[in-house]
Amino acid sequence: MSVRTRIAVLGGSGYTAVELMKILLRHPHAEIVAVTSREVKSVSDFHPSLLGRIDLACEPFDAAAMKDKGVEVAFGCLPHGAGAEAVKPLLSAGIRVVDLSADYRLKDAAVFERWYGEPPHDPANLARAVYGLPELYREQIRHADLVANPGCYPQTAILGLAPLIRHNLIEPADIIVNSVSGVSGAGRTPKLAAHFPECNESVIAYNVGKHRHTPEMEQALSDLAGRPVEILFAPHLVPMDRGIHSTIYAVPTTDATESDLRELYRDFYRNEPFIRLRASPPATKDTAHTNYLDLCVNLIRGKVVILAAEDNLIRGAAGVAVQNFNLMFGYPEPMGL
Amino acid sequence: MSVRTRIAVLGGSGYTAVELMKILLRHPHAEIVAVTSREVKSVSDFHPSLLGRIDLACEPFDAAAMKDKGVEVAFGCLPHGAGAEAVKPLLSAGIRVVDLSADYRLKDAAVFERWYGEPPHDPANLARAVYGLPELYREQIRHADLVANPGCYPQTAILGLAPLIRHNLIEPADIIVNSVSGVSGAGRTPKLAAHFPECNESVIAYNVGKHRHTPEMEQALSDLAGRPVEILFAPHLVPMDRGIHSTIYAVPTTDATESDLRELYRDFYRNEPFIRLRASPPATKDTAHTNYLDLCVNLIRGKVVILAAEDNLIRGAAGVAVQNFNLMFGYPEPMGL
Amino acid sequence: MSVRTRIAVLGGSGYTAVELMKILLRHPHAEIVAVTSREVKSVSDFHPSLLGRIDLACEPFDAAAMKDKGVEVAFGCLPHGAGAEAVKPLLSAGIRVVDLSADYRLKDAAVFERWYGEPPHDPANLARAVYGLPELYREQIRHADLVANPGCYPQTAILGLAPLIRHNLIEPADIIVNSVSGVSGAGRTPKLAAHFPECNESVIAYNVGKHRHTPEMEQALSDLAGRPVEILFAPHLVPMDRGIHSTIYAVPTTDATESDLRELYRDFYRNEPFIRLRASPPATKDTAHTNYLDLCVNLIRGKVVILAAEDNLIRGAAGVAVQNFNLMFGYPEPMGL
Amino acid sequence: MSVRTRIAVLGGSGYTAVELMKILLRHPHAEIVAVTSREVKSVSDFHPSLLGRIDLACEPFDAAAMKDKGVEVAFGCLPHGAGAEAVKPLLSAGIRVVDLSADYRLKDAAVFERWYGEPPHDPANLARAVYGLPELYREQIRHADLVANPGCYPQTAILGLAPLIRHNLIEPADIIVNSVSGVSGAGRTPKLAAHFPECNESVIAYNVGKHRHTPEMEQALSDLAGRPVEILFAPHLVPMDRGIHSTIYAVPTTDATESDLRELYRDFYRNEPFIRLRASPPATKDTAHTNYLDLCVNLIRGKVVILAAEDNLIRGAAGVAVQNFNLMFGYPEPMGL
Repeated sequence: MSVRTRIAVLGGSGYTAVELMKILLRHPHAEIVAVTSREVKSVSDFHPSLLGRIDLACEPFDAAAMKDKGVEVAFGCLPHGAGAEAVKPLLSAGIRVVDLSADYRLKDAAVFERWYGEPPHDPANLARAVYGLPELYREQIRHADLVANPGCYPQTAILGLAPLIRHNLIEPADIIVNSVSGVSGAGRTPKLAAHFPECNESVIAYNVGKHRHTPEMEQALSDLAGRPVEILFAPHLVPMDRGIHSTIYAVPTTDATESDLRELYRDFYRNEPFIRLRASPPATKDTAHTNYLDLCVNLIRGKVVILAAEDNLIRGAAGVAVQNFNLMFGYPEPMGL
Repeated sequence: MSVRTRIAVLGGSGYTAVELMKILLRHPHAEIVAVTSREVKSVSDFHPSLLGRIDLACEPFDAAAMKDKGVEVAFGCLPHGAGAEAVKPLLSAGIRVVDLSADYRLKDAAVFERWYGEPPHDPANLARAVYGLPELYREQIRHADLVANPGCYPQTAILGLAPLIRHNLIEPADIIVNSVSGVSGAGRTPKLAAHFPECNESVIAYNVGKHRHTPEMEQALSDLAGRPVEILFAPHLVPMDRGIHSTIYAVPTTDATESDLRELYRDFYRNEPFIRLRASPPATKDTAHTNYLDLCVNLIRGKVVILAAEDNLIRGAAGVAVQNFNLMFGYPEPMGL
Repeated sequence: MSVRTRIAVLGGSGYTAVELMKILLRHPHAEIVAVTSREVKSVSDFHPSLLGRIDLACEPFDAAAMKDKGVEVAFGCLPHGAGAEAVKPLLSAGIRVVDLSADYRLKDAAVFERWYGEPPHDPANLARAVYGLPELYREQIRHADLVANPGCYPQTAILGLAPLIRHNLIEPADIIVNSVSGVSGAGRTPKLAAHFPECNESVIAYNVGKHRHTPEMEQALSDLAGRPVEILFAPHLVPMDRGIHSTIYAVPTTDATESDLRELYRDFYRNEPFIRLRASPPATKDTAHTNYLDLCVNLIRGKVVILAAEDNLIRGAAGVAVQNFNLMFGYPEPMGL
Repeated sequence: MSVRTRIAVLGGSGYTAVELMKILLRHPHAEIVAVTSREVKSVSDFHPSLLGRIDLACEPFDAAAMKDKGVEVAFGCLPHGAGAEAVKPLLSAGIRVVDLSADYRLKDAAVFERWYGEPPHDPANLARAVYGLPELYREQIRHADLVANPGCYPQTAILGLAPLIRHNLIEPADIIVNSVSGVSGAGRTPKLAAHFPECNESVIAYNVGKHRHTPEMEQALSDLAGRPVEILFAPHLVPMDRGIHSTIYAVPTTDATESDLRELYRDFYRNEPFIRLRASPPATKDTAHTNYLDLCVNLIRGKVVILAAEDNLIRGAAGVAVQNFNLMFGYPEPMGL
């Protein structure tokens, strides 16, 4: 299997990191040479599932040490803020980065500040970052040295709406994205909302109209539309480990039939390895542990209703990150996935 | 504990029936004297949870035998069709009925036929039936001898929208009801869609725009509005036993503030024992095993967004059935609940 | 419903407390007049499920204030240590206590110290406390002013083995109790082991041979046997909210048949309202939200195998606490349960 | 990627088959050329998760047609009885078989009959079959043309006890295997016991002392011991998709310390790629979607207590089947796993 790209994983203790490492471990051209964490313990102490599969101790972050190890690319699995703090020295050291935090996703500093309540942490590099959604930004990703890996929810909304938005077939300011997510989306830090007896056997809406993934959806879709797109985004927590299901409602500005719309989607995604168009509603389980995003487009009672399903940790984070890595390093796009 | 109303439960093997019996067993004025099923075995063989709490054998349905036992009211927990077949002889025998099937919910035979693919099973009694939603039809229920107990989903939609519809504050033809339900809503007959390894760890939409609870929502809301109301209803299955959460989207035709809307709801439901108005999103778990329906009204990005939560088996079926029973027999409305 | 006993609930924020309050709220002779917590907020802020059902604010613990309110009995839902600190002033103030902590369960201070790593917190009152297992200590409980409410796991083991132990039909030092518990048993404080994505879809053993409920089982069974009984206790966590299932293995010292053993259990528990003897394996769900403990005794391949199921929060804590309360205050034992 | 072995999957509609196909699809030397089922529909209609990953229609079983397609090995995912009916013509046609049914696991026809209530379906080939547990029968598997893939539970018991049994360190007739399994172990045919609202939030024991995996455990361990080994096996169902956890109790006949025992296990499994020895209790989740079997050996209160965890569908079925396939065809043992 010859040459392997040397990789660092930053913030190795969380759910995204462990999924990322599992994918990289079966990727024929990837080699994890460093994993960072504030806590110095072995990777398999954090993740017993990796016992016998990776023999590395976590180390504190140090860009120079990574350079010395020959690291060519780092995957940042850190919270926003911490993400940017790591990106800056890495880029300076000539190491490419796939950043899974929110730090570089929003191009407009004012928008970032409005939704995050603070200015971006690394405004200087905002312009340099490419939004890592391969289906829309494939060519830029190939040449990027900083990829802002997209959020989990936004991918369902953006890819669920892209063909309609691109062809101007729906009202751009009357879109509802109603999503449900498994609890792993809340991260690995214990909190009451993710405490088993609280969220098991229960469903609850949260941050309706206020979730920080909203501007990310709006930015990518506005970019595609060439005019402002507005989203009412309502996320909910459901009792499962992983999976996101979005039910998207839009108002058609066309008299296209359901069959026309399905044809449009088939055309739009014809060569995409990870978009599956479904004739009936997709279950999140159909996509579990894969990089697929499943879509089912319908015309119901005068509205376009798009059903989208993905694994929030793979397609929604670690999987698309590897897809981006493959693009950046010239490997076949689905390699390892 | 004095006088007890003598009760029959028809179709004793399912989830609604067992919840109903649990409520009736702790109701000081209820006495279950007969339980029917095609299978002649003891009630506790169907429901081990009732072992030691009820000592009855299921018997085949026979209206005359019930009359002889002094049954005053029957709760029908049968599928539609079978429900009507039992109601007819019971009414003839002078036994009042709370029917939990769909047979008498829709007043318009043509609407029934359009959604169920067959004409109503007992058209003669349609007009006699009262729709058993106490918050809207309390007085009629008191005097009814046939109550059509409402569906589980419709209650969240109807009660979630009633104050706005009554006061004409939203567009009547641009309403979306996006609901999720626990799997007990699918009944107790084994089927692949409710097989544990299929629906656990998964979310899926089903019957979007085609679910038979849609016309029930539209009928009650149109009745309240005095003009046609149209609903786009999208139900989903989530991996939990019980609980329905509806996220309802409507377009305001008023410039009322969120605070105005909340005041409106407080007024509308001021004396209702089972409607709880919440300042923050309700979890379905907050309502589990109770007859409460929790509502949270919001004005978000130009839309009214109502969050509604209930227990599909209690508020959505057996609990409201007992609330109806209490109204019909002059007991305090929350008794046993 | 006339006279009501005035009650305080100490430590109102947890899972045991909320279940206890739900039972007391439907108990015709109970009145909750005070709920304590270090955090001064309303009870329904801690427990939205209680919204509209109880209108009390939590207050800091103060025995004198409770006396002034006419509190006759307090239920202690505090962790061990804190439990004893509350019990002392309450007893001095003449308030009876059902203590759900572990502080008074073990009679022998040395045994407490061996398993808890510290001496008992209130050794002076150890002798005064009655172990609150009604099936074994009913008469003492009636007259107790301090009841040490039993642990959740121990009840399955003690009541599962009591008939055999009492009649000397098994080896007292060769007993295995293999138990699984729902996650609510871990309490309400967020921790990684109870974080949804960690414990969902997973089973793990913990504290095998070291769990602090072991000496509680041994004490009650040794007391019953009149000689030392030793238990190998292996608890496991399973992904559900509530429920304990114990599979108990013992070596018979008799040639009694399975049918003899079942007869023995029927005799032993003949008049017990909350013990159900089952001919086939009980599911924990059969006991959910009830005070029942279901037992199924078998003789299999030379061993006695007892299957025991209960709801860990009701029978295992709040329910049996109310059963104890009923005994202490002369109410019918199953009242409210 | 050169040469690929041509493979048929028999009985393609179930959970074992879909997991098997997922593994084979990423195996560089495997090529699925036929999938059989009584229902002629596409593989991805049975398993939407495979959409876009395999483009085959299921076909009725026909050994001659398989020979014509150049099939070299068939994986039988059929129930017992049907398994043997397929094996016979395949072997005659010179096609090697990994049979995942129970038909060839038990060497002694009388034992089969005692536990299955009928004689073996293909007694003539019983002697030819090799029990497919690589850790114990690796060399025979390499040369086998018929491998009887082991049951899911037995692997935890056999591998959990093998080092002790081989070295004669425990009583051979006083062994308890207390296991819990996720619901996928019950297969994909809908039935009440696996209906979501029945088994969710519940634990139940089943077939205690009577489960058909018992003789399989006893056969392999007796073979290893050179004398009869007897197992009391108690399986339970827990609410999760996948995973088996066994807690195994044995009586030591040695004064070896816990540390000695752990050393013994390390020696015994030193070169095994799929056995992981753990210092603390393994969670089933640590092994999910992998071929690992995790073991933790303890000496507690005079008993050896072994904790074993595996994924019932991978290690317990499809994964070990591919491990066997790799041995049979000379590929590296962990390939694809």
